[in-house]
Amino acid sequence: MGIVVQKYGGSSVATSEHIRAVAEKIARARESGLDLVVAVSAMGKTTDRLLRLAGEVSRDPSPREIDQLLATGEEQSVALLAMALHDRGIPAESLTGPQAGMTVTGRYGSGVISEIRPKRIHTLLEQGRVVIVAGFQGMNALGDVMTLGRGGSDTTAVALAAALEADRCEIFTDVSGVFTADPRIVPEARRVPVISFEEMAEMAWRGAKVMHPRAVELGALYGVEVHVRSSFEEGPGTIITGGEKLERLETRETLAGIVHDLDVSRVTLNGIRTGPGTMSRVFAPLAERGISVDVIVESGVKDGAADVAFTVTRGNFEEARKLAAGVADALGGAVEGERDLGKVSVVGTGMLNRPGYAARMFASLGEAGIPIRMVSTSEIQVTCVLPADRVEEAVRVLHRDFELEERDV
Amino acid sequence: MGIVVQKYGGSSVATSEHIRAVAEKIARARESGLDLVVAVSAMGKTTDRLLRLAGEVSRDPSPREIDQLLATGEEQSVALLAMALHDRGIPAESLTGPQAGMTVTGRYGSGVISEIRPKRIHTLLEQGRVVIVAGFQGMNALGDVMTLGRGGSDTTAVALAAALEADRCEIFTDVSGVFTADPRIVPEARRVPVISFEEMAEMAWRGAKVMHPRAVELGALYGVEVHVRSSFEEGPGTIITGGEKLERLETRETLAGIVHDLDVSRVTLNGIRTGPGTMSRVFAPLAERGISVDVIVESGVKDGAADVAFTVTRGNFEEARKLAAGVADALGGAVEGERDLGKVSVVGTGMLNRPGYAARMFASLGEAGIPIRMVSTSEIQVTCVLPADRVEEAVRVLHRDFELEERDV
Repeated sequence: MGIVVQKYGGSSVATSEHIRAVAEKIARARESGLDLVVAVSAMGKTTDRLLRLAGEVSRDPSPREIDQLLATGEEQSVALLAMALHDRGIPAESLTGPQAGMTVTGRYGSGVISEIRPKRIHTLLEQGRVVIVAGFQGMNALGDVMTLGRGGSDTTAVALAAALEADRCEIFTDVSGVFTADPRIVPEARRVPVISFEEMAEMAWRGAKVMHPRAVELGALYGVEVHVRSSFEEGPGTIITGGEKLERLETRETLAGIVHDLDVSRVTLNGIRTGPGTMSRVFAPLAERGISVDVIVESGVKDGAADVAFTVTRGNFEEARKLAAGVADALGGAVEGERDLGKVSVVGTGMLNRPGYAARMFASLGEAGIPIRMVSTSEIQVTCVLPADRVEEAVRVLHRDFELEERDV
Repeated sequence: MGIVVQKYGGSSVATSEHIRAVAEKIARARESGLDLVVAVSAMGKTTDRLLRLAGEVSRDPSPREIDQLLATGEEQSVALLAMALHDRGIPAESLTGPQAGMTVTGRYGSGVISEIRPKRIHTLLEQGRVVIVAGFQGMNALGDVMTLGRGGSDTTAVALAAALEADRCEIFTDVSGVFTADPRIVPEARRVPVISFEEMAEMAWRGAKVMHPRAVELGALYGVEVHVRSSFEEGPGTIITGGEKLERLETRETLAGIVHDLDVSRVTLNGIRTGPGTMSRVFAPLAERGISVDVIVESGVKDGAADVAFTVTRGNFEEARKLAAGVADALGGAVEGERDLGKVSVVGTGMLNRPGYAARMFASLGEAGIPIRMVSTSEIQVTCVLPADRVEEAVRVLHRDFELEERDV
């Protein structure tokens, strides 16, 4: 009998009514005769509430204790969901990450699943039970619980699907699939029925909130077919796949979609002396402080000096600017920055066959009078960094000019 | 170096401010150079909130899932307390019950500690850390978390003190010790400086909320000296002991104190045929449903028939009455009951040497016109069941007549 792994996010289990609704969804899915393993996030704002408490008792809470604290959020929602299933007469059992055999390595707060020992899950499935697994967590070599970082419940679900050789992994969320752009900004945006792992990963990294990019990459690695669907309504959602369903995609000539992110700041080091090791001198201090850098642009070298610009989230802007200023000083340059930026990306495997997407994007934005501060491209995406207050306009302009609303879906 | 086990209850860690205050208390205790192991309950009303959620998703939540859910309450408070200690520069580590080596058997919701494997605690103490252990929980043979039932954090603390051969166990609570009566009812009530395990156990079973009776009995069994102290103010509190400090007690000629309980109902089976096995027929159905029976009174047998009365908590009254009615029917009798009762107990080892306490108690209550519905006695206590609305008056009358406010403390 086939296994399906489902994942329900925090907004899907935010209240006891939501949990009962999820139990009903699971009950219906179970009627198809499939074995079900369900990964669940913490209820609604639980994680934020716990982090606030941590901030109230400590200025710099230890990562181990943060993980010990946050893990309880998922442990509560799995127990409640199991109870709600029992109440419908469905045999179910909740498992914490450690109980489910999720083995994790790495650092507290950003653990990486190293192995899944699914013996207990298989035993429970053989007993005819629905198995409810706490997302976002596992056990490290010390026997401590360790979290996978935010968004990690998606990763739990996809990893479980891979380890259990499940037929598919269904990610239930508060949107009804992947869209060509954010429907709150572009009312004409359309649901994308099928998308490749590569496109989905690019969209997720560049701002699409529908699924965590690490989970997408894990799905690609193990060939787990992922369905993104709404918790709140019926509908086909979006299938993320690398298999035969992708053939349709290869012949698609347009973009998969447009994604944006409003939380971007830029730091630029102007006129710094370059040489071997310069980039490392710029970015090593940021990495040491755990600051993620997104877009990086280096100007050509002129008279032995160059400009290096990079983006970080707004929360990291001041610290990144300070660190960069130290480096710029030492290298005879100066630092400059801009806090309130955003970015817009066009993503699609269609780019592989048809060049010129970047040029069309610059033309569209230029005609609309929207300034471009930075550009970053890869094989299947072009990203422009813009003033934050022009991002929504840019998304609408690009959605129209790339004719996404008209495309056959 | 000596070890002290401390326990902080739910009201002591109700908010982040409370948790910071507990961290300060621990910091001061640590200055004495003792090794500290701290058992902690869930924050304030967390357990009630989680039980309410469980009731919202299920009409009859499974005990295993209830335990999985409730255990998270203590897991949160230990992590937060460890963080608050780190913030004061004190090395500390939080452990869940399973991590602390608390091994538990029995039924979910009312687990019993069967063994403590304190290897990890000893290692952490050797590293100079304060060890924070989640109260109220342990791991069963299946690897699942199991709770010890309400009030179980006291038991965790005393069991840890026994296993670690600690110098003493300090129970921090929201009162400043054991009193001769509830000070909210009797303003003249005085703190009892030293009390025996037997007296404390009687007082705890008969309504004193200061410490869980199972924890008192465990302390007696392993000879763990227990100090009950206030979380919110400095003060000597009450020492519960079975050792040499008790000698002072043996010469004490008065009572330890008066305790009361307002949550009592009575069920009486009138005129039932008696014979071998009658009592078992009456009480086995109650035990099967997990209903605890407190006071039991059987009248003398007359013409082969007898009356049997017992008390239960108000929440169990209707069900107990129904079960008793079935038995009474089968034995040719009838059932009768009274919902809103309370009980008052006088407790003290002084009774061992001086008989007549029961008679003095009945006389006091009789003079005040307070009706007595049932009586139960043991070597060191006399309990009277009364109408609930006369209980406070009875406590005041007895406290005065037994001259507890005047006694030398």
